[in-house]
Amino acid sequence: MSINYPLSMTVAMEQVMIILCVLFTLAFFASAVFKRFGVPGLIGEIFVGIFVANLVIGDWSLLGFLHIERPIPGVAGSGNENWNMIEMIAELGIVFLLFVVGMETKVKDLTSVGRTAMLVAVLGVAIPFVAGYALMMAWDGNIYHAMFMGAAMVATSIGITAQAIKDMKMMSKKESRIIIGAAVIDDIIGLIVLAVVAGMAMTGSVDYIDITEMMIISVMFVALILLFCAKAVPKIACKILGSCEKRRTKDPGWRSNIDIFVVAIIVCLLLSTLAYQMRLAMIIGAFLAGMIFADYAHDAGLTKKMESLTAFFLPFFFVYVGLHIDLSSFTASLLLLAAIVIVLAFVTKYVGCGLGVILGGKEKISPHIVGTGMVPRGEVGIIVATIGIGIIVAGEPALTNDLFAVIVLMAVVTTLIAPFMLSSAYKKKYGGREPEDEPRDDCPCEDR
Amino acid sequence: MSINYPLSMTVAMEQVMIILCVLFTLAFFASAVFKRFGVPGLIGEIFVGIFVANLVIGDWSLLGFLHIERPIPGVAGSGNENWNMIEMIAELGIVFLLFVVGMETKVKDLTSVGRTAMLVAVLGVAIPFVAGYALMMAWDGNIYHAMFMGAAMVATSIGITAQAIKDMKMMSKKESRIIIGAAVIDDIIGLIVLAVVAGMAMTGSVDYIDITEMMIISVMFVALILLFCAKAVPKIACKILGSCEKRRTKDPGWRSNIDIFVVAIIVCLLLSTLAYQMRLAMIIGAFLAGMIFADYAHDAGLTKKMESLTAFFLPFFFVYVGLHIDLSSFTASLLLLAAIVIVLAFVTKYVGCGLGVILGGKEKISPHIVGTGMVPRGEVGIIVATIGIGIIVAGEPALTNDLFAVIVLMAVVTTLIAPFMLSSAYKKKYGGREPEDEPRDDCPCEDR
Repeated sequence: MSINYPLSMTVAMEQVMIILCVLFTLAFFASAVFKRFGVPGLIGEIFVGIFVANLVIGDWSLLGFLHIERPIPGVAGSGNENWNMIEMIAELGIVFLLFVVGMETKVKDLTSVGRTAMLVAVLGVAIPFVAGYALMMAWDGNIYHAMFMGAAMVATSIGITAQAIKDMKMMSKKESRIIIGAAVIDDIIGLIVLAVVAGMAMTGSVDYIDITEMMIISVMFVALILLFCAKAVPKIACKILGSCEKRRTKDPGWRSNIDIFVVAIIVCLLLSTLAYQMRLAMIIGAFLAGMIFADYAHDAGLTKKMESLTAFFLPFFFVYVGLHIDLSSFTASLLLLAAIVIVLAFVTKYVGCGLGVILGGKEKISPHIVGTGMVPRGEVGIIVATIGIGIIVAGEPALTNDLFAVIVLMAVVTTLIAPFMLSSAYKKKYGGREPEDEPRDDCPCEDR
Repeated sequence: MSINYPLSMTVAMEQVMIILCVLFTLAFFASAVFKRFGVPGLIGEIFVGIFVANLVIGDWSLLGFLHIERPIPGVAGSGNENWNMIEMIAELGIVFLLFVVGMETKVKDLTSVGRTAMLVAVLGVAIPFVAGYALMMAWDGNIYHAMFMGAAMVATSIGITAQAIKDMKMMSKKESRIIIGAAVIDDIIGLIVLAVVAGMAMTGSVDYIDITEMMIISVMFVALILLFCAKAVPKIACKILGSCEKRRTKDPGWRSNIDIFVVAIIVCLLLSTLAYQMRLAMIIGAFLAGMIFADYAHDAGLTKKMESLTAFFLPFFFVYVGLHIDLSSFTASLLLLAAIVIVLAFVTKYVGCGLGVILGGKEKISPHIVGTGMVPRGEVGIIVATIGIGIIVAGEPALTNDLFAVIVLMAVVTTLIAPFMLSSAYKKKYGGREPEDEPRDDCPCEDR
């Protein structure tokens, strides 16, 4: 046809729509096939990402066909707009997932496992960091490589574990609570480790004031929200949901104009953004936001509605994780290093967190399940590596492109392994699935 | 704090998250307040867009604070990435909305009003075009200005009307069917008008082959999908939903691994993209995709799930429409022209479409409701104007920046007025609201 004009104002919406179609459709089929063989669907989605990123036939590549340009590590502003669109949708996906996980977690669920979760987190940070640090000192003796490898080993990506647990309907188990609680604490400690490492690489010294400030702010952020959940939320819910006066009045009045689902989305976006501003991961904010609604989510139908939202967003996250793997960048010696790093990343996290459970002294809790659940590094490990590659020390980046590739592979492989093991570990201990909808009979409002 | 590092790989996710928070929260409050006073919530959301776009205090502007740069009309590549993110979410919002509208429209609903809808569409295109053309010939005598003004007058944005009708739960009324059907036909005719106008501006002549080709393809696209709905869908639904063998077997087998909601999203994305490739509006594809699921959407819970998705996306669309208005660009003479254009746009569409109903000879149908429902120009009018401004004729754009501003104002104002009038017109004829969930008892599978 001879006439070509833009049908849209600015974005090449055409490209974006094709990308969304292709990734979403492939993710659906891969997920359905993997589930058919008893493998968690998200593994299939990560494989779709790896497949799309690495399908090259001569001069033709699938990435090129889809007009996706991945960012070059360490080069600011690299990667094109289509990549950024995928990233945005992916990040919203993981934010919404953690929001749902939060909605299934009550404050008392966390406090009841608080001590154990703390031990799991601390040991799950310390042992991997030391191992990563020691490995790189032995490998090339570069202290910055060692520090960033240690920091990347520390990260736990709760999103993958959370989705696997949700798929198995095991969210209410004690082990799941400990994993979630430990992941929140882990994120705060990991943030501090990263700040120390990045600060040392940039300035050669440790800024204790900055670190103390960061520590106080992030702990206060978490504590304030937990306090808010326990004290203020029941009263607000009374007013907005009318949950405490069900029997008194049938007239919804001004409440009929308020969609509680939209309020939930607002709280989720606000706390994610706030967490981000405090340099915590957005997903921590989203998780805490979910906890605010934990007592009412089921009755108000929030969980179901949020799950419709994640059904669209979340597959893009797992595809996005896979998209980071560039198979062509691996040489034999790099693969050897990667293999060592992967084994070390798995073993140290598994042992550290398992040890935390055993020292926690709760005999009924399986250290095997908790240890496995904390293994995935996912996007958090990749973010640490990205920061390392962006810091220039004496004319060189603190992390090389090769080591970046190793860390990305480690992050993706730990993410791929964990759901398998987790799934069989849960099945071994608890047998089949729980019923999908456990009725909740503990609405605090109605008790009064 | 002294250490600053990117927490995300490429996108300034921080900016995007803040923008999403601010726009979504403002949209929620505006919508709740407007609804409280009996005004459709989407009006409040459009006002939020106008407010955000025009809040300037000295050197400070809210747009600047949010790091949103709107595109400069006619300048390719202008507008920043944050704007494009909003646009993407907005476009997905209107796509998902029309998908839901499609799910509430059965093939027989459309065919039963086919003749009337065709008359409404044709007269609703012809009269506004002639009026817009004549006005600009009288105003400045520029034939290109006249052609693009005519084309912009033609566009109907069904999204706004659809949302208003949905809010009132009037989707099953005859008038609503006619409006939807006419909007689909209108979009096809509008596409052809635009092609003719743009072709004449660019080449000075009309490419009849191109136009014939376009006409055949778009009519075939629509016809094929309607045929598919009527013939193939019941059989596929049998297999995937198992809806025809409910009593025979309880075992879902391989179907348990297939999430029909995800399938629906895939079909929606695919047909929207396909429509776009054929230069039809994406929303036409989404609407037709929805019709594929019309017989099963209610039973499979699709409508509710899609509504959770639109609850997130759609407010951004209405805000996005409002964001296009730049109040500072209006001078007195331009405001006079804008006023004339707005009145003309309203009257000609209303009269043209109303006349279509009367000539259609269905006495029970209210010409007033149909005429009002076709009035909003919304984003389609803006897109036409954007194309006009991008075409250079003898060194000058076919449409000036001033006329662009006038058309945008016309598009937004017609969009603001229509829902009010539509709401009171429906109330006058049908009284209060229908029950929210009409039970559907016509599953074609079970009849067999």
